[in-house]
Amino acid sequence: MPEQKINPDLQKERNTATFNTHEFSVFWAGGEDKYKEKKALEKMFLEDPALEDDLPISYLSHKELYEHSLRKACLIGEKIRKLRADGEDGVDTYNALLGGSLGAAILKEGNPLALHYVMFVPTIMGQGTMDQQVEWLSKAWDCEIIGTYAQTELGHGTFLRGLETRADYDANTQEFVINTPSLSAYKWWPGGLGHTANHAVVVAQLYTKGEFRGLAPFIVQLRHSETHEPMPGIDIGDIGTKLGMKAVNNGYLGLKNVRVPLNNMLMKNQQVLADGTYVAPKNTVLTYGTMMFVRCALIRDTAQSLAKSSTIATRYSAVRRQSPIDPNQPEPQIMDHTTQQLKLFPQIAKAIVFKTTGDGIWNMYNVLSGEIEQGNLDRLPEMHALSCCLKAICSADAAAGVETCRLSCGGHGYMDCSNFPTIYGMTTAVCTYEGENTVMLLQTARYLVKVYGQALNGEQLVPTVAYINDAVKAKTFANFDGSLESIVKAFQFVAANKVRIAYEQIESRRKQGHSTEVSANLSGIFLTAAADLHGRAFLAQSAYTELVTVSGQVSPALADVLKVVLELYLVDACLSRIGDFLRFIDLTDEDVTKLEVRLETCLKKLRPNAVALVDSFDLHDRVLDSALGAYDGNVYEHIFESTKKNPLNKEPVNKGFHKYLKPFMKAHL
Amino acid sequence: MPEQKINPDLQKERNTATFNTHEFSVFWAGGEDKYKEKKALEKMFLEDPALEDDLPISYLSHKELYEHSLRKACLIGEKIRKLRADGEDGVDTYNALLGGSLGAAILKEGNPLALHYVMFVPTIMGQGTMDQQVEWLSKAWDCEIIGTYAQTELGHGTFLRGLETRADYDANTQEFVINTPSLSAYKWWPGGLGHTANHAVVVAQLYTKGEFRGLAPFIVQLRHSETHEPMPGIDIGDIGTKLGMKAVNNGYLGLKNVRVPLNNMLMKNQQVLADGTYVAPKNTVLTYGTMMFVRCALIRDTAQSLAKSSTIATRYSAVRRQSPIDPNQPEPQIMDHTTQQLKLFPQIAKAIVFKTTGDGIWNMYNVLSGEIEQGNLDRLPEMHALSCCLKAICSADAAAGVETCRLSCGGHGYMDCSNFPTIYGMTTAVCTYEGENTVMLLQTARYLVKVYGQALNGEQLVPTVAYINDAVKAKTFANFDGSLESIVKAFQFVAANKVRIAYEQIESRRKQGHSTEVSANLSGIFLTAAADLHGRAFLAQSAYTELVTVSGQVSPALADVLKVVLELYLVDACLSRIGDFLRFIDLTDEDVTKLEVRLETCLKKLRPNAVALVDSFDLHDRVLDSALGAYDGNVYEHIFESTKKNPLNKEPVNKGFHKYLKPFMKAHL
Repeated sequence: MPEQKINPDLQKERNTATFNTHEFSVFWAGGEDKYKEKKALEKMFLEDPALEDDLPISYLSHKELYEHSLRKACLIGEKIRKLRADGEDGVDTYNALLGGSLGAAILKEGNPLALHYVMFVPTIMGQGTMDQQVEWLSKAWDCEIIGTYAQTELGHGTFLRGLETRADYDANTQEFVINTPSLSAYKWWPGGLGHTANHAVVVAQLYTKGEFRGLAPFIVQLRHSETHEPMPGIDIGDIGTKLGMKAVNNGYLGLKNVRVPLNNMLMKNQQVLADGTYVAPKNTVLTYGTMMFVRCALIRDTAQSLAKSSTIATRYSAVRRQSPIDPNQPEPQIMDHTTQQLKLFPQIAKAIVFKTTGDGIWNMYNVLSGEIEQGNLDRLPEMHALSCCLKAICSADAAAGVETCRLSCGGHGYMDCSNFPTIYGMTTAVCTYEGENTVMLLQTARYLVKVYGQALNGEQLVPTVAYINDAVKAKTFANFDGSLESIVKAFQFVAANKVRIAYEQIESRRKQGHSTEVSANLSGIFLTAAADLHGRAFLAQSAYTELVTVSGQVSPALADVLKVVLELYLVDACLSRIGDFLRFIDLTDEDVTKLEVRLETCLKKLRPNAVALVDSFDLHDRVLDSALGAYDGNVYEHIFESTKKNPLNKEPVNKGFHKYLKPFMKAHL
Repeated sequence: MPEQKINPDLQKERNTATFNTHEFSVFWAGGEDKYKEKKALEKMFLEDPALEDDLPISYLSHKELYEHSLRKACLIGEKIRKLRADGEDGVDTYNALLGGSLGAAILKEGNPLALHYVMFVPTIMGQGTMDQQVEWLSKAWDCEIIGTYAQTELGHGTFLRGLETRADYDANTQEFVINTPSLSAYKWWPGGLGHTANHAVVVAQLYTKGEFRGLAPFIVQLRHSETHEPMPGIDIGDIGTKLGMKAVNNGYLGLKNVRVPLNNMLMKNQQVLADGTYVAPKNTVLTYGTMMFVRCALIRDTAQSLAKSSTIATRYSAVRRQSPIDPNQPEPQIMDHTTQQLKLFPQIAKAIVFKTTGDGIWNMYNVLSGEIEQGNLDRLPEMHALSCCLKAICSADAAAGVETCRLSCGGHGYMDCSNFPTIYGMTTAVCTYEGENTVMLLQTARYLVKVYGQALNGEQLVPTVAYINDAVKAKTFANFDGSLESIVKAFQFVAANKVRIAYEQIESRRKQGHSTEVSANLSGIFLTAAADLHGRAFLAQSAYTELVTVSGQVSPALADVLKVVLELYLVDACLSRIGDFLRFIDLTDEDVTKLEVRLETCLKKLRPNAVALVDSFDLHDRVLDSALGAYDGNVYEHIFESTKKNPLNKEPVNKGFHKYLKPFMKAHL
């Protein structure tokens, strides 16, 4: 790589930072070992010219993008195969390659083979018997077959019992007959289903001996192994262009009397015997585990989106100059405008807090997994409730944060070469998949209302909701002194009161004669608001705990910066829900003004380290893939380079001039 | 058109509506005449098969999209030529054809000729002398030349004095020599500049006799009239792919010693004589007028975005069924979930309020224009301040509203066939162009702080800020009784207090020794918040006044519905800023709960008329262009039809299988 000439405004920021970015980068990567591992993977994947794009992919048509992405997906698959042969294919490697960091650098609109690795293989491992694993797993690991996971239907998503696809067992032939009986029953959305996978796990309503048995997963061959032609009875294709994740090859699938052998039903949890006898599963808790696992992982992804966006926008804001603060002075770096700081720095703080919270939740999940395996399911509902609302809050905040960063870059943020449009497309998708956000909040709320009733009955609640016990005892919140501890405590008090109101709303509607379910629906506004505050109270607590802990383990210089980050996060979070604070806590107009002045003070304190903080996220230029956010800060040069690649600019005169424009211009002459 | 089979769930909604949608549609169009005009234009433009797309344009590459759009732009240009010849080319026609309704139906990613009509021609009319108009206008009207307007540069946007492009007058040859002296001086963003226009109005820093004179507009020929090749010294092209407005052919332009004759400077306001003598303009107020005109128009555009999005999401929510409210009942229409109503109905209400406010502002602007022409500039600052903050608020709310509607449709909203991605791309752009939103809010705030000082001095303020006089007198707000009038009054009281705090913050920082400018920058958080509340107070007032007026003019059935819309709008607006209400007005926890219950009650009251309301917006299926939002509600059929057009699905096996996937799958065998 030729030596980079760093933009002097950016260099100045780096020179005046008060902490060592490398120290933070190592912490951010998860320790020295993981940092080295990350660097090695970057070397292996980002220095391979075969994985680079000559042409920015935004210039490709949908079909070209698919073909381009399939090529690279196969190259990545080859490298995974080698890593696997060398025993170096750990979970972190898969996460990096298929997820938000390295994966996004190579295939920024997604990987059509991703679901094979992250859903097809794990489903066989989790739901197949030992014999089935022997039969299918080696073929799947070796990519002799490529699979996907087909559950959602055109007319049915979140509510699984509503799925229409059915599998009828035919004891005569010992086969299941699978059908999508209507258009709304068509499987819809699975990644790679369109033209890539030749197998799928298809989730269907199981019938044996004419009786309905519940949902079950079936391995179905979709395409011929040699010709890739759709198998008989299979209607299959790509669902079309989307806001983001454009290369995932999301597909649709209709099945008409498709027969699969008895042994293609994955039978670890429930069985069908040859004569059609059905053996029900012992418990359904295990599937909860998988959903929680995914949601915990998503929290980390949202942190990654915020890290990317805030890096791009912060570097740009150090380079871009506009609108004099003092009319007699030259235009300042736009980062010197307080309103710009207000857009950028809270996103940096959220990236850090969501990351540390995601790590914390991940550890909680691992402890819980151990407990579940030992048959202890006590903390499952608590953890489920927590993971649901955090998934909703972090994804919504991250999507909004990406857009705030984009808009902070003015028109240039609107160009694809900024990479914001792609980051937004990936991030906002998280609001919908793996449990739609409003549904998630309602699930959390249901739990909160339930435990609120228990607290009223004097029961001691489990740790993450124990603050409700306190609030039930103390009706007012005394001593809001503005300390960080008191902001955290106040958040919990506010959350408990939001849960109280949701509880009271349901009760009052029940007294009016509505059923519990209808009462809950009518109280939806109160329920989602309660779940939102519960999650935010947890985030405040987690931010405080994690960052205070980290600050004790790092250099004083870094600890000082992290304290500012923590204060900024908490003050901003508090002000963003100030209506709720004022509603339940006795604060004056002056108290609020003080908090707002304090927010501005935090921004000012963070200002000298803003660039160093985003540098610490240590995002490779290929990962950022942004003309506005490159490490060297040569923003205008990079933008101009990107336009030079525009295929429209390869010809000085487009053929449309001769074909359409000239005849139109000359028509009246 | 074959008879449409209407989805029964949607038909049921229409059957049970309590008002006549046609009555509302006529009001929405602006009266019987405009309604008929609209229908006639729709017939002329939307029934011409040459203007239809066989293939959804999301499947095209950037280059293909440009060529496709240029073809249609020329066809539209032909029709405009005919309308003009028949004397039927009024302002409304141009707005419809180049703006958000018809224009978006034909060229949903924008029209590469739009800036010719909306900027190039008007600039010559507004800034050219009579002689210059004679010289240029007929050629421009006949499209013998195609122009654009080149002002923004790669490194310079909002702050016009920062522009780098310069024009030096050479008295020897009586020419201007125009240069972009650096990369950051390149003109950037003008629509149609890339490959379409052959002329541009280029805005440059004028130098004559070696002295700097300020900005001036120059007509520059960019491309050869016959060959369309760039003229000597012109470096020109398309800036590349973007989040939205993908077919606008936004371009860049570098100029190197490009010479244009003296007469190519538009000289209505300022002149350069042959010897280089500079004659300064009399006043610069007129350009303010144009900016206000554009911002007033944008407020209406945001209403259109919300009308489109809420139509799509509401119809979908009547058809889609999901997640039982009662586990023993079938899945309900998702519109029956209170949380879904909370997403949809406020957007419907905002569409109506932004539309009526936009119309009101438009009338104010026309009155003001008349006053300005008579030399009365009194209300100019007030109107400028108002148009700035309303542009910012309406565009930000509309963009957020579009996304709320999209997310309310789950995964299906994420598909391009929903049309949400395109609507979002068009709408969020309004947050940035014609004055970036934060800059807009700061301009409003500057005015508000100034008039606050006047109010403190006992001066009576002009109408739109007169509420500040009241608040300066009465320090507390008594009698919040929850009536709609009191919500409006409370909004004004809250806004006045936000202005007070902004004023006090600047004063306190000045006392600390900062200059006024630095004090204002440090108080940016307070300033933008004050401008936000000022705009929202105006919207509340306007919603109240306009809808009460309309309600007196329509049938009682429609008036009843509009009253619910008004109440929903005001209660929702109040709750969205409840922190500010609680800060300045003595409200209890119970008061807030009551408002929240009232919000839920409004949603319930609106529920039976939701589909009828969006039907009343009378948006043609081609304008909506959404599989989720078509009038017949056959959502799944339309989605499926759209996937069938996907070029990837034209071949059962993609060539990528043979080229990449099969070798990869067989590699280890």
